[in-house]
Amino acid sequence: MTGWSDGFVAVDWGTTNRRAYAIDAAGAVVDEFEDDTGVLSVPTGGFDPALGVLRDRFGAQPMLLAGMVGSNRGWIEAPYVPCPATLADVAAHLCWAEPGRTAIVPGLSFVGGDDADVMRGEEVQILGVQALGLVAEEATICHPGTHAKWIEARAGGIARFRTIMTGELFSLLRQHSILAPMLKEPATPGDAFLAGVDRALAGEALAADLFSVRARILLGIGQAADAGSYASGILIGSDVRSGLATARAGEEIAVVGRPSLTSLYAAAIRRAGHGAREIDGAAAFVAGMRAIAEKIG
Amino acid sequence: MTGWSDGFVAVDWGTTNRRAYAIDAAGAVVDEFEDDTGVLSVPTGGFDPALGVLRDRFGAQPMLLAGMVGSNRGWIEAPYVPCPATLADVAAHLCWAEPGRTAIVPGLSFVGGDDADVMRGEEVQILGVQALGLVAEEATICHPGTHAKWIEARAGGIARFRTIMTGELFSLLRQHSILAPMLKEPATPGDAFLAGVDRALAGEALAADLFSVRARILLGIGQAADAGSYASGILIGSDVRSGLATARAGEEIAVVGRPSLTSLYAAAIRRAGHGAREIDGAAAFVAGMRAIAEKIG
Repeated sequence: MTGWSDGFVAVDWGTTNRRAYAIDAAGAVVDEFEDDTGVLSVPTGGFDPALGVLRDRFGAQPMLLAGMVGSNRGWIEAPYVPCPATLADVAAHLCWAEPGRTAIVPGLSFVGGDDADVMRGEEVQILGVQALGLVAEEATICHPGTHAKWIEARAGGIARFRTIMTGELFSLLRQHSILAPMLKEPATPGDAFLAGVDRALAGEALAADLFSVRARILLGIGQAADAGSYASGILIGSDVRSGLATARAGEEIAVVGRPSLTSLYAAAIRRAGHGAREIDGAAAFVAGMRAIAEKIG
Repeated sequence: MTGWSDGFVAVDWGTTNRRAYAIDAAGAVVDEFEDDTGVLSVPTGGFDPALGVLRDRFGAQPMLLAGMVGSNRGWIEAPYVPCPATLADVAAHLCWAEPGRTAIVPGLSFVGGDDADVMRGEEVQILGVQALGLVAEEATICHPGTHAKWIEARAGGIARFRTIMTGELFSLLRQHSILAPMLKEPATPGDAFLAGVDRALAGEALAADLFSVRARILLGIGQAADAGSYASGILIGSDVRSGLATARAGEEIAVVGRPSLTSLYAAAIRRAGHGAREIDGAAAFVAGMRAIAEKIG
C-alpha cells in the first residue's frame, strides 16, 4: 500500500457528477478526471464498481472522497462534525471506507437555538482557502451554488454557517414557474442584474420582488431580454443582503466557487458596499484535500 | 335580449378551471356550474364553443366574465385599469365580447416608481367585499392564493396592491425541490405552522429559512410529519410580514379567498398581532359581479 505522503487522489463526488484530481508527493495536480457518476446515479450496491472506475484510472493510490458520497444518499454516511470545527476536527473524523486506503471527509453541522444547518463538500473548499492563507483569522466566506453557504471562519476553522437556497430557487423558477418563459437568457452582471440587486438590498420581500419580474414586462417597464439577469439580481441580492448581516462593516468577502457564479456574487457584494475577492473553487478544493491528507500522514 | 337587471350569469374563469353563478333579479344565486375548462385548456379559436357550454346550461342571459379569460392567454385581452381604481372605473372599462350581452371585467395594474404589479380576477372579490360593507373606507385586504395579493382599499376602490408569489413557491418546493419528499403532508395552522410563522416574522431571509426545514430534520430537531406545516408557516409568515408593513398598528385585516387558505393566513396575521376576519372568496366574487352589473343597467 502506498502512503499518503507519496501522493493520493482527491475526489469531489457530488449529487450529479464527480471530479477527481491525482495529487503528487509535492502537492501538484498531475492528472484530472470527471464524469457524471453523481451519487444519485449510483444504484444500491453500486459504489464498489463506481469506485473501480477511478481505481482503473488512477491505480492503487490512497483516495480521499468528499461531498454527497458521504451522505445518506451516498456510499457510506459520514456523520456531520458539529461546528465550531477545525481542519484537525475534520481530519480526525474521516470515515474509512477501506481502512488506511479510502476515506470519506465528513460534512459539518451547526445547531444554535432554533437554527440548524448542514453542509457536505463546501467545507473542504473553505478549509482550503484557509490553508492557502487567502483569508484573515476572522473572515466571512461566501460559497455560492445550488445551496449557497455563508461561513463565519475563525482561527483556522469554521465557527458557524448558514445555507440559502438561492441557486435551487432560481432553477425552480426557470424550469417550472410562471416566470419560466421570461428567464431563458443567462444572467450577466450588467445593469439589469444590478437593478435586481438594488431592489433586493432595499429589503422588500423576495417573493414579492420576484413577481415584479413578470408585472414589469406586462406593463412595458422591464425588457424581456433582461428578465433573467434582473431575477438573478433579485435572488442573489437577497442572498447577499442576508449573508452580509453578520459581516464587519466594509469587510472584504472571499467568494469561493465556480467563476461564472462568483462573478455575479462579487458584483452584488460590491454593490452592497463590501469588497469581494473571487477564489476558484476547484483550486480551493485541492488545497483543502491536501491539508486534510497531511493530517493523515 | 334580456336586460342585466333581470338577472345575469357571473363567471370566474381562471387558468385551470371556471365557475359560473346564475344570479336572479333579486341578486340571489339560483344556479351554479363548475368545470375544468380553464383558459390554458382552451385552444386557439376555442372560446366560442367553450362559452357555448355555458350558454347551453344557462340560456340567453347576459354574461359577465372575470379572471384570466381577459388576459393575453385568454379570449379577448381586456386592458388593465390603472390604480387607484373604483368600482365605477372597472365597470366603465368592461371589454364587450358580444355587445350588450357578454362582457369581460378588466384586471388592475399598479405602477409607482420602480414598482409594477398586475391582478386579474381578485379585483372582483375586493370590490365585492367593499360593496358588502365588510371593510372600512380605509382597509388592508389580503387575498391569499397562487399569487397572493395585499390590497390597500381606499374610499370604495383600490389604491394600490402588491403580489407575493407565496402559493406558487410552495407548490414548486412541494413538487420539484430537495424539500419535496418532506412536504407531502398538508399544512395545518398548528404549532409547527406557528413556529414557521415566528421564524419568518423574525425577519430572516426566506431562502435561508426554507433550507432549515431540511437541516432540522437531518439533525433531529424537526419532525418530518410537521415539515409541510413548518414550511408553509415560513412562506406565509414571510408573506404576512411583508403585507402588514403598510397596515395600521393593530388593524384588523380582511382575508378573502378559499377558506382552507384564509384560515392559515388568519392564524399568521393574528400571530403578528393583528386581528383577522375571514371572508369567503366565492361570496365576495358574487357580490362584486352584482355590483359591477348594477352599473351596466
